[in-house]
Amino acid sequence: MILKTLDELAEKIIGLKNVTILTHARPDGDTVGAGLGLCYFLRSRGVKANVKNSDGFPQKFGYLYKDYEDQDFEEQSVVSVDVADTKLLGDGLIGYAENVDLCIDHHYSNKLFARDSYVDSDSCAVCLIIYRLIRKLGAVPDPLIADCLYTGISTDTGCFMYENASPESHRAAADLVEYGARAAMINREMFQIKSRGRILSEQKIIGGMRFEDAGRISLIAVTNDIIESYGIDRDDLDGYAAIPLTVEGVEIGITLKQLAEPEDTYKISVRTVEADASAIAAAFGGGGHKRAAGCSLSGSLEEVSAKMIKEAEKFL
Amino acid sequence: MILKTLDELAEKIIGLKNVTILTHARPDGDTVGAGLGLCYFLRSRGVKANVKNSDGFPQKFGYLYKDYEDQDFEEQSVVSVDVADTKLLGDGLIGYAENVDLCIDHHYSNKLFARDSYVDSDSCAVCLIIYRLIRKLGAVPDPLIADCLYTGISTDTGCFMYENASPESHRAAADLVEYGARAAMINREMFQIKSRGRILSEQKIIGGMRFEDAGRISLIAVTNDIIESYGIDRDDLDGYAAIPLTVEGVEIGITLKQLAEPEDTYKISVRTVEADASAIAAAFGGGGHKRAAGCSLSGSLEEVSAKMIKEAEKFL
Repeated sequence: MILKTLDELAEKIIGLKNVTILTHARPDGDTVGAGLGLCYFLRSRGVKANVKNSDGFPQKFGYLYKDYEDQDFEEQSVVSVDVADTKLLGDGLIGYAENVDLCIDHHYSNKLFARDSYVDSDSCAVCLIIYRLIRKLGAVPDPLIADCLYTGISTDTGCFMYENASPESHRAAADLVEYGARAAMINREMFQIKSRGRILSEQKIIGGMRFEDAGRISLIAVTNDIIESYGIDRDDLDGYAAIPLTVEGVEIGITLKQLAEPEDTYKISVRTVEADASAIAAAFGGGGHKRAAGCSLSGSLEEVSAKMIKEAEKFL
Repeated sequence: MILKTLDELAEKIIGLKNVTILTHARPDGDTVGAGLGLCYFLRSRGVKANVKNSDGFPQKFGYLYKDYEDQDFEEQSVVSVDVADTKLLGDGLIGYAENVDLCIDHHYSNKLFARDSYVDSDSCAVCLIIYRLIRKLGAVPDPLIADCLYTGISTDTGCFMYENASPESHRAAADLVEYGARAAMINREMFQIKSRGRILSEQKIIGGMRFEDAGRISLIAVTNDIIESYGIDRDDLDGYAAIPLTVEGVEIGITLKQLAEPEDTYKISVRTVEADASAIAAAFGGGGHKRAAGCSLSGSLEEVSAKMIKEAEKFL
């Protein structure tokens, strides 16, 4: 069943008992914040609840879970947060795929795999939905829950930098700071601090940045050589794709990521200011969104770069 | 006279005629946004007003002033915004030093040089004060004024990243987006885009980053060699000092900036997570704040680096 209103969602939440909350694999701030925030909120109302993740929660979210301990109970309800598709549960939780009672999400592309689904694609973050829910139930978040919810809202809006930082996102952030969220500390952890390998690998990659068409196209390559010499986690390559567009005048940014195996294959991200990124990626069988898309290509670094640049030039 | 309440400030604003608004030299988003925002607001009420800056407004704020034109009138009132000290007016406006009728500022250190001063050091930005003022006068900002005020609030809080991004700052941002501020565009211009020289110089500097004491101290050097080869503006060296502390584990970050003349002298920034930066700088006759301070030292790059690191080690 599709839950259309917050009232309907609130009613479902009230009925939950012995709850397992599922978060998506390769967890980000929103799934972690929403999962733990909802868990702590349910526990505060005397409902038993645990949160699960296929990969475990990354250490950088330690400030949200350092005193978290699993509770002992016989599971009666399963809720997923920020999970658009059961594939995203990851290997450790895929067994729940057919057995999700309630899905709370903000992805337009949600597959509606759960018995009941509340999907609001206008919300910047699931954490914003959880915040509305808590207020709808006449409660207010304690400081730890406020930390959880602030984390998701801030990370999913790029610290309020992107288009999705709506007036409501800002007002929720204001409230959460008043309820005790440690905003400055959270933002420092989420946005400012990088590992030494990460920051040094970025300088190496930027140093090799290639500019074409009077600087309107730029291309960077994250090679195995760089990944290995700086000890970068292959699961942690997302941020690099944003680099080319940070240079003034660049309209199309291309990021090549070499695969570990086979080494002659590159996963490619295309980011654009105005041009249709998905059309550029589609020329090589890829796809995505208007401003961010991806594809794969095989060949030498030089060959793959040349193909991508040639295609991108058609869109200038 | 010290104006203690917003009502007193509003009363002074109502009395202004033929107004010249002064902003500080080397203008940032807050002085530009507050100056233009106040100017456009006064004009919307039929009051003649102009904004002045010693250095002219940087091109990156073009979206705020592209249709701005000076009005012709005989000056009757002079207002300064975001100016803590008349020295900061710069050479072009220093003639106004003894002749400022009303000063609106948020610096605790404001020298109270004006006939009337409204200083609220709890406000993240002067733009927040101007926003309150407009609302107090029963008005709302038009979209261009909203752009101005959003710019100052966002830039002075590091896009809501810092401690000073108060609940009120977020609520004002929410309102301003509703009044038409183009937040995502503004944040991209202010925070994401860098010149090619800037981004390449940063990679060069980061590549030469020095780590001491198991990575708890890091040091970078902005040398004349780098400044010249990447065509960096010497007035635009502020951002570099933030780089050392972005590396995980670094507790004290030191940035050396070589002077053009004499070349054996370095302007030094000290940034810390916990340690007393002003005490470190004080050892060499400098000073500043607890987490950000500065001093100057002469000698070779190696000698100056060694002295700074030795002093910083005492504070680990």
